[in-house]
Amino acid sequence: MKSDVEIAQCITMKPIEKVAEKMGVGRSKLELYGDYKAKINEDQNKKIEHEESGKLILMTGISPTPAGEGKTTTSIGLADALQKIGKNAAVAIREPSVGPVFGMKGGAAGGGYSQVVPMEDINLHFTGDFHAISAANNLLAAIIDNHIHHGNPLNIDPRNIKWKRVLDMNDRQLRHVVEGLHGKANGTPREDGFEITVASEIMAIFCLAKTLEDLKEKLKKIVIGYTKDDAPVTAGQLKAHGAMAALLKDAIKPNLVQTLEHTPAFVHGGPFANIAHGCNSIQATKTALNYADYVVTEAGFGADLGAEKFINIKYRLSGLRPSSTVVVATVRALKLHGGISKTELEKENLQALEKGLPNLLQHLDIMQETFGVSTVVAINKFPTDSEAELKKIEEKCREQGVEVVLSDVWANGGSGGKELAQEVVRLADRGSQPMFTYDLEDSILEKIEKIVQKVYGGKGVELTGIAEKEIGKLEALGYGDLPVCMAKTPYSFSDDPTKIGRPSDFEITIRDVKLSAGAGFIVMLTGNIMTMPGLPKSPSAESIDVDEDGKIVGLF
Amino acid sequence: MKSDVEIAQCITMKPIEKVAEKMGVGRSKLELYGDYKAKINEDQNKKIEHEESGKLILMTGISPTPAGEGKTTTSIGLADALQKIGKNAAVAIREPSVGPVFGMKGGAAGGGYSQVVPMEDINLHFTGDFHAISAANNLLAAIIDNHIHHGNPLNIDPRNIKWKRVLDMNDRQLRHVVEGLHGKANGTPREDGFEITVASEIMAIFCLAKTLEDLKEKLKKIVIGYTKDDAPVTAGQLKAHGAMAALLKDAIKPNLVQTLEHTPAFVHGGPFANIAHGCNSIQATKTALNYADYVVTEAGFGADLGAEKFINIKYRLSGLRPSSTVVVATVRALKLHGGISKTELEKENLQALEKGLPNLLQHLDIMQETFGVSTVVAINKFPTDSEAELKKIEEKCREQGVEVVLSDVWANGGSGGKELAQEVVRLADRGSQPMFTYDLEDSILEKIEKIVQKVYGGKGVELTGIAEKEIGKLEALGYGDLPVCMAKTPYSFSDDPTKIGRPSDFEITIRDVKLSAGAGFIVMLTGNIMTMPGLPKSPSAESIDVDEDGKIVGLF
Repeated sequence: MKSDVEIAQCITMKPIEKVAEKMGVGRSKLELYGDYKAKINEDQNKKIEHEESGKLILMTGISPTPAGEGKTTTSIGLADALQKIGKNAAVAIREPSVGPVFGMKGGAAGGGYSQVVPMEDINLHFTGDFHAISAANNLLAAIIDNHIHHGNPLNIDPRNIKWKRVLDMNDRQLRHVVEGLHGKANGTPREDGFEITVASEIMAIFCLAKTLEDLKEKLKKIVIGYTKDDAPVTAGQLKAHGAMAALLKDAIKPNLVQTLEHTPAFVHGGPFANIAHGCNSIQATKTALNYADYVVTEAGFGADLGAEKFINIKYRLSGLRPSSTVVVATVRALKLHGGISKTELEKENLQALEKGLPNLLQHLDIMQETFGVSTVVAINKFPTDSEAELKKIEEKCREQGVEVVLSDVWANGGSGGKELAQEVVRLADRGSQPMFTYDLEDSILEKIEKIVQKVYGGKGVELTGIAEKEIGKLEALGYGDLPVCMAKTPYSFSDDPTKIGRPSDFEITIRDVKLSAGAGFIVMLTGNIMTMPGLPKSPSAESIDVDEDGKIVGLF
Repeated sequence: MKSDVEIAQCITMKPIEKVAEKMGVGRSKLELYGDYKAKINEDQNKKIEHEESGKLILMTGISPTPAGEGKTTTSIGLADALQKIGKNAAVAIREPSVGPVFGMKGGAAGGGYSQVVPMEDINLHFTGDFHAISAANNLLAAIIDNHIHHGNPLNIDPRNIKWKRVLDMNDRQLRHVVEGLHGKANGTPREDGFEITVASEIMAIFCLAKTLEDLKEKLKKIVIGYTKDDAPVTAGQLKAHGAMAALLKDAIKPNLVQTLEHTPAFVHGGPFANIAHGCNSIQATKTALNYADYVVTEAGFGADLGAEKFINIKYRLSGLRPSSTVVVATVRALKLHGGISKTELEKENLQALEKGLPNLLQHLDIMQETFGVSTVVAINKFPTDSEAELKKIEEKCREQGVEVVLSDVWANGGSGGKELAQEVVRLADRGSQPMFTYDLEDSILEKIEKIVQKVYGGKGVELTGIAEKEIGKLEALGYGDLPVCMAKTPYSFSDDPTKIGRPSDFEITIRDVKLSAGAGFIVMLTGNIMTMPGLPKSPSAESIDVDEDGKIVGLF
């Protein structure tokens, strides 16, 4: 069997100008980054025009398991399949972080015959977007400490600064630091820590900015911490937003690459799906919809997290409305949700499947009942799937009025997803009008309660003392009308990752609260969210190399 | 009078493909970064071929003063002037660091009618080289601490790690940190600090790498610190060099932009001129010489520092030989060397000039006598210069057999440098065979002594106890045959910045020693070298902005 990189290297990429041209994007709108990557340079203040726009298909999945579901692969394959059945299609996905590339082998650009290319570039610096985001983040950090150093006229409390520095690197050593040491010429001693770039609020802002002006407005609103009198201090008060926007002005233009079958692929922005909303930039989705009739896009994790945030944050903010959705599952993953172990997956096991299926069914409920968007189940095919297992899934889903389609895009590219494409088109053409789970006027607690009850299927919400106090403070400061962004384990509908399948009768505990005033949401932390990963004992960096011809080896 | 940015904005850039084509570089060798920037993608393992190569002109200057000498401006203007007199010319200079852009107003891309463009891009992310260098640097740092975290099989002493993390940011708060705090899951507590990216040894390696293979070899040799038994630990032992090279494999390709007069400009790499060798990459100089008949390149600071390192490090390593040199001076700066204050510069003052002239004369001695390279003085013209003052300079220089030419490229572009171009061509066509100041077989102390006596005009060298011990250690470890890299104040030939003009009878004190085994030199620290700048009280970041059309304002 060929590896992902071997498959990718067998295919001759088309010059990106050709890919763009076929979609209707002329050379004058392209900023080339080499021959196979480009940014699309359009009027960034252009609004989204629904009337002219294509149809958006949102890819989501069951609660992820260690077996892997293949959501990105299915997204890419579906876009290829849409092209195969004669539609003008594109895919819009997140760009990967470079940090993890040096930890575990394997990139984030699809797999098998459904990949985006050039994969080495996409997984390394790509067009420099994440570097620009790191620079904007760290400029703000430097300005904060410089302000304090030069007399601190805004009276910032060095013990209450929320803004952290970032690196796009897995570097646990920087999680907790004390900085500003060595006397008064060298800053102010204080506790601090670094996060990985994708965890930065700038990443969320970058992905939620509707226009360049909007980007600047959002940067201005960032709350970096509090004064000694506990009043919020913004990036705008520090006059940092203009320079930060200057660092981001090219990065904000969406990146265009191609799939192995030369379908246009917008790969742009990549916020966390827990402390942020977890989908690619509005700029990319908007631009894709301006040119393609069908755009497949992906939301992080399962429907309870990624799709919930897509609806309640991204769609609410931008109006970018999914016309239909796909829930990706595998027979293997559903059996894991049924409680068997990873070593038992090869054998048919209808009992385990039956026990795991409610996880899928709840995701369908969420999409159809709670959000009001039509959906189809894509079973990402494995050789070990039995006829009886597939039949069982189909039966149960049909009871909820949802079709199940086998997807074989990993092995066959677009040809393996034609049936899925047809069902998606049928649903998308019918259209949908998504419903929000809560109103912005609801109190913060009400918002969380509605998500827990209507999406997670839980009983209610418990707040720790810290969370309760912080929520009260944020409402008093006027931030109560922001949407909430749930930072919860993706492995369970509950906040306990071991409760797989379809748990019930649980409460969600909000441990702490984090204001992302620039991005425009309040993060609800239900557990410990790792915002700076570490490298493993034998990091993949040890085997990555570049050969005499400049070709990267050992990356995948 | 128009500002630099206003001048730059009046000129219509040519597509970089046209600039390249005129020089003989076809489209297939270009990797475009937008329409006005490109990397030249050639066989990176191609050797330098002297026979076919153009002539290299090295731009250096007097000891810098607060009045500014305009070395970069003169380099760019001279290349334009060479084109004007019918030569096929190019310029090769360093790329600027983004950190300082947010501190003081003003970029580093020439001035007046002698600039390289697009200046905003060049001063911000450009083609991402510095981000790649930061990433490679910080990957090595993460791998070091990860190695210690996972059992430390190499027995690295956490108290004796020399490798620091970097950011391309002026951020004094990070100069001295304690990291790895918060328990055993979060690294190993130790003292550390951040430097600005341009101070990284990777930057020096990047600029001294002859080929991609050579880059990897150099990365492998980096000494990151010592074991608990005081044995050096290399990046190669940590298996980090392959992944670092992968991060640098595109960055290492030289960048091509253009001057305001569309002369090809190679802007690539930018190491410090004190703790490193201070000139653009070998890749850029080599590529420029492969296509142009005359290439103007610049070395940092005065001839005592930049030119000395060019000869004894870059030329020794690469064989890239200057055929002639230019020493840039201004009447104003020479009067400052004569001891008058900055407020008195407008008035003619032959006495001050006479007193300051020996500074210039010593730089000429260095170039002609010590290095054996023919030279011409370029007086960067100011309206306040008097005829008598100019005559005086000419007279004194002629006594040493050196011509003095007025340069007016700031106000007139290439037309203002024709006479200089003619003299440069005359000297370059005569050629030269530069002489090294010391042999690699000399002891480390002998090397420093020869530089102090033959270049600085000082008496001798004093070593602190620390320096003496460290030199002994490095010689014992087998690093004694590396060239030395002097980290000395640029403002004086001595190590005391207040001793301007032409001091004599001084000793140079080596305070400490730093091994850059990857770059291939040993740094001699004579004073405190600031490797992480801070922002001023009112940083220029406060006025930088991007307007509705995506145009950057307030940068210059």
